[in-house]
Amino acid sequence: MKADLKEHIQKIIPLTDEEFAFVNSHFSTKKFKKHQFLIQEGDPVKYSYFVISGLLKLVYTDSSAKQHIVSFAMEDWWESDFYAFYTQTNATMSLECLEDTEVLCCTLDDYKKLCSGLQKMERFFLEKATFGFLGSQRRIISWLTSNSKERYEHLLQQYPSLFQRVPKSLIASYLGVSRETLSRLSS
Amino acid sequence: MKADLKEHIQKIIPLTDEEFAFVNSHFSTKKFKKHQFLIQEGDPVKYSYFVISGLLKLVYTDSSAKQHIVSFAMEDWWESDFYAFYTQTNATMSLECLEDTEVLCCTLDDYKKLCSGLQKMERFFLEKATFGFLGSQRRIISWLTSNSKERYEHLLQQYPSLFQRVPKSLIASYLGVSRETLSRLSS
Repeated sequence: MKADLKEHIQKIIPLTDEEFAFVNSHFSTKKFKKHQFLIQEGDPVKYSYFVISGLLKLVYTDSSAKQHIVSFAMEDWWESDFYAFYTQTNATMSLECLEDTEVLCCTLDDYKKLCSGLQKMERFFLEKATFGFLGSQRRIISWLTSNSKERYEHLLQQYPSLFQRVPKSLIASYLGVSRETLSRLSS
Repeated sequence: MKADLKEHIQKIIPLTDEEFAFVNSHFSTKKFKKHQFLIQEGDPVKYSYFVISGLLKLVYTDSSAKQHIVSFAMEDWWESDFYAFYTQTNATMSLECLEDTEVLCCTLDDYKKLCSGLQKMERFFLEKATFGFLGSQRRIISWLTSNSKERYEHLLQQYPSLFQRVPKSLIASYLGVSRETLSRLSS
């Protein structure tokens, strides 16, 4: 099912039709095919993305060329190399389609105009950023306190659909375990 | 050196004296002695704290009673069990003084009044939350990609003063390594 930006925002803050028309005018739509890149490491990061449909992986490649999944993003999620986006520096990560994907795109300039033009949107983004921070903090706590079996079970419980849509090797990379360990856990 | 809330906010957004007086009226000051708790696991979380002076540890205790350092907070930092604070649920972590500590305290109600009453403060907190999220994301990437020696060296480079002020056993807990591993790394 496709995500709807207005419904997504209204989970946090009510908007009139006129206000949503203002919000919507700050986004453009783009479609990508499976395996295409929205962001390539080393390039400038022009957009923050809201996923309408499809599935993305945010990947960090280390100095020995090993790829690590930093996050997945599916319908209703925001994704980008946010550090590069906010600081207008070049990407240190890549963002790639695992399925055909449709996104709404917002530039940093439009993001700032949106926040200045409608205080409700600043509140909306504050809530998203706060809960983004809390989600990352819980992931850190889970790294500190859980073994790979527990992390696997927790992810399965939180996002069962991910296990239907994503190859096991990528789930292993997200959890920071080897493919072999994951096979043992999921058998 | 003591942190100054006005200077701290003005790194992000300029404030007139009148605006700062409004901001300041939403905070109260508290002093704690070394080993005292600002937050105890299981209790309601009344405040978000801005550290004026001193040093805190945010601790998660797992089901086998092992303590894990989620973060440290020193002068100029904000700290709380933020999930419990924002959702007004009971603390799942504890916040304890590693040194005598002075903090400014803000309730959730005052935080909301501050954001509604002065849009600049909503912008300020949005920037803090965004960079809080980015800091956590970089810590996750460092867990995925680095070994304990690299994580140790990175922390030493980022916060050299922490190594003067914090016992090694706590640094080890923050990095998720054993005390023995840390002794080997730092020798």
